[in-house]
Amino acid sequence: MSQALDLLRDLIRCKSVTPANDGALEILQDFLTPLGFECQIVTFDGDGSYPVNNLFATRNRGGRHLLFAGHTDVVPVGDEAAWTHDPFGAEEVDGVMWGRGAVDMKSGVAAFCAALPELVDSGEADNGTISLLITGDEESDAVNGTVKTLQWAKEQGHQFDFGLVGEPSSAEEFGDVVKIGRRGSLSFTITVAGEQGHVAYPHKANNPIPVLSKIAAQLSSEPLDEGNENFQATNLELVTIDVGNSASNVIPASGRMSGNIRFNDLWDAFKLEYWLGQQILKVPANGCDIELKIHHPVSRSFVSNESKDVDLLIETVKKHANITPERSTGGGTSDARFIADYCPVAEFGLVGKSMHQVDEHVPTAMVDRLQAVYTDYVRAFLDQKS
Amino acid sequence: MSQALDLLRDLIRCKSVTPANDGALEILQDFLTPLGFECQIVTFDGDGSYPVNNLFATRNRGGRHLLFAGHTDVVPVGDEAAWTHDPFGAEEVDGVMWGRGAVDMKSGVAAFCAALPELVDSGEADNGTISLLITGDEESDAVNGTVKTLQWAKEQGHQFDFGLVGEPSSAEEFGDVVKIGRRGSLSFTITVAGEQGHVAYPHKANNPIPVLSKIAAQLSSEPLDEGNENFQATNLELVTIDVGNSASNVIPASGRMSGNIRFNDLWDAFKLEYWLGQQILKVPANGCDIELKIHHPVSRSFVSNESKDVDLLIETVKKHANITPERSTGGGTSDARFIADYCPVAEFGLVGKSMHQVDEHVPTAMVDRLQAVYTDYVRAFLDQKS
Ligand SMILES: [Zn+2]
Ligand SMILES: [Zn+2]
Repeated sequence: MSQALDLLRDLIRCKSVTPANDGALEILQDFLTPLGFECQIVTFDGDGSYPVNNLFATRNRGGRHLLFAGHTDVVPVGDEAAWTHDPFGAEEVDGVMWGRGAVDMKSGVAAFCAALPELVDSGEADNGTISLLITGDEESDAVNGTVKTLQWAKEQGHQFDFGLVGEPSSAEEFGDVVKIGRRGSLSFTITVAGEQGHVAYPHKANNPIPVLSKIAAQLSSEPLDEGNENFQATNLELVTIDVGNSASNVIPASGRMSGNIRFNDLWDAFKLEYWLGQQILKVPANGCDIELKIHHPVSRSFVSNESKDVDLLIETVKKHANITPERSTGGGTSDARFIADYCPVAEFGLVGKSMHQVDEHVPTAMVDRLQAVYTDYVRAFLDQKS
Repeated sequence: MSQALDLLRDLIRCKSVTPANDGALEILQDFLTPLGFECQIVTFDGDGSYPVNNLFATRNRGGRHLLFAGHTDVVPVGDEAAWTHDPFGAEEVDGVMWGRGAVDMKSGVAAFCAALPELVDSGEADNGTISLLITGDEESDAVNGTVKTLQWAKEQGHQFDFGLVGEPSSAEEFGDVVKIGRRGSLSFTITVAGEQGHVAYPHKANNPIPVLSKIAAQLSSEPLDEGNENFQATNLELVTIDVGNSASNVIPASGRMSGNIRFNDLWDAFKLEYWLGQQILKVPANGCDIELKIHHPVSRSFVSNESKDVDLLIETVKKHANITPERSTGGGTSDARFIADYCPVAEFGLVGKSMHQVDEHVPTAMVDRLQAVYTDYVRAFLDQKS
């Protein structure tokens, strides 16, 4: 069994469902320290969330500074009875390893760590500086994880030239997608308050549902943009609309809808709040009180397209894959959005198909292949002059 | 204390919250039997509802046949601590009697019964036939009450010339309103089913909310008619719209809205179902499954405007009130809609302002005044030749 698979097995056996750590970060610390990394497990808490352990490991040799980022926390097991293998057993059967986190993303963390000994032995790791930021909370609140660890690292004087995130970025086949950015995500709620009454006496009431439904229809009919070179079109989805009135003869007092906007780099939170307000104003309020509430924090959009380090990552992946990777900004959000505040960032990892599902699993050959990409990339990255 | 108030007090002291009777119908039976009424308490059950006692009392002397209809059941007390008088105490303080049913409508029943002894003594009651249908379930399901008792009475050979319902019809002042009809009431639910998914991957889902809200907006924007001589305009109110999705990153599978239509005599259940279907078809379904469900039974609309017995009632009320009564078809539904299937029907009673509320009460002078109207009306009604 390769070092990457050894490490992956040990990590899967930690029951590190957010925010539990169960020894996962210590396994990495024990692996990295002999390689010359200064390791610190930093704990953050507060801001309405639970305490979280985060590992920051750095091997400072001057030169260019690469930050690898990932997480050891995993989503819950779900329907445990539906698993055909122990979700924390890391069983290997016929070249496949099973368990929660097998793709998202204990394999990414294991593959990157396992890439390091060879580079340290050869002296190539001394051409620059390598750091790892491994959080214990990417899958849940993400309040006391990557974002605070980055702030802390900055205060310690660390400055990164590029961030590589090991999330499972591949879509259908190993190497088909490198994520060079992400859309932003903004959630909002609109409340419409009228006046309660009896359906037989509508003149004594003010039904909020016509205004509520007209605003919902308006929000559903107006495209925000058509996308651009790097991003698909910004998209708004209403996720719920609710009044909660069970009496068929009562005109309700109020109703509300909530929605989520996945937006490209043509927008930010302020522009979207203004746009939402304009859509609401297109519907006559008919005496109703209408309130728009933006849910904070809003995830901003980012793109790291114009970076030679992204070009290098694409080149490296292409060498190891049977396909030219697509530069993508699609899909959900990730902690890469926090790193984008400090340096260009890209994400490359395994095919994520079984992530968050029952029977999450990874072909062991793919973990070794991912390690090979990371090895080549770190070598080439550090070899470039800044 | 007048006979009407005696009877009202005894009735209020029965805790006859639907479907309880607590001796209320027996009090009436004991009062009517010595006056020459044949009384029967008939119990109906089944059809998805609880068993209900109904009193049918008839004094058959041939001639014209007047049916008085009412109910002795009452709505629940509500917040008992908020009452300033015992809701079943029938306390009389400074000319006001307090208690649940004081206006809706134990007073109407008491006033009509108390009108009879004088007419029997004088022999005027022998000019025709008087019947009373007093149900124990007008306020709740109304499945085993008036509607089945009317059917039963028909099978017994009873044929009515006119129905007088003693519900509190007056709006602001005694005698200002005689109800000559009622709008119908139809409730419906529209379900829109799309396909669930993640907000970041809308192309793999089909959000039902745009279609749901567009149908709601369509239903809220299209008037059904402008009303006519006897009726105000038909009115549709959406009473709720619900999806019930609490996850801000999930596109929901389905949503539904419910509404109620209060409709005039230009419409019936079939026409309304067709109209609703046409409105739904105006919104592109966008691949969603849309289901329209009409809630049965539908209360039909009716009007008894062209009846000399209605004219006589208006004349009689006018003599006793300080105002010319308005012929109204407004407000909610009542059991009069069932009687309308057998004969013309009108409703006249007290001002209903405190009905269904905490501290329901009636000025005692008003009960005597109502009795006087009923006495004069029965006299004049039976005196007319058919
Ligand atoms: Zn992940
Ligand atoms: Zn009533």
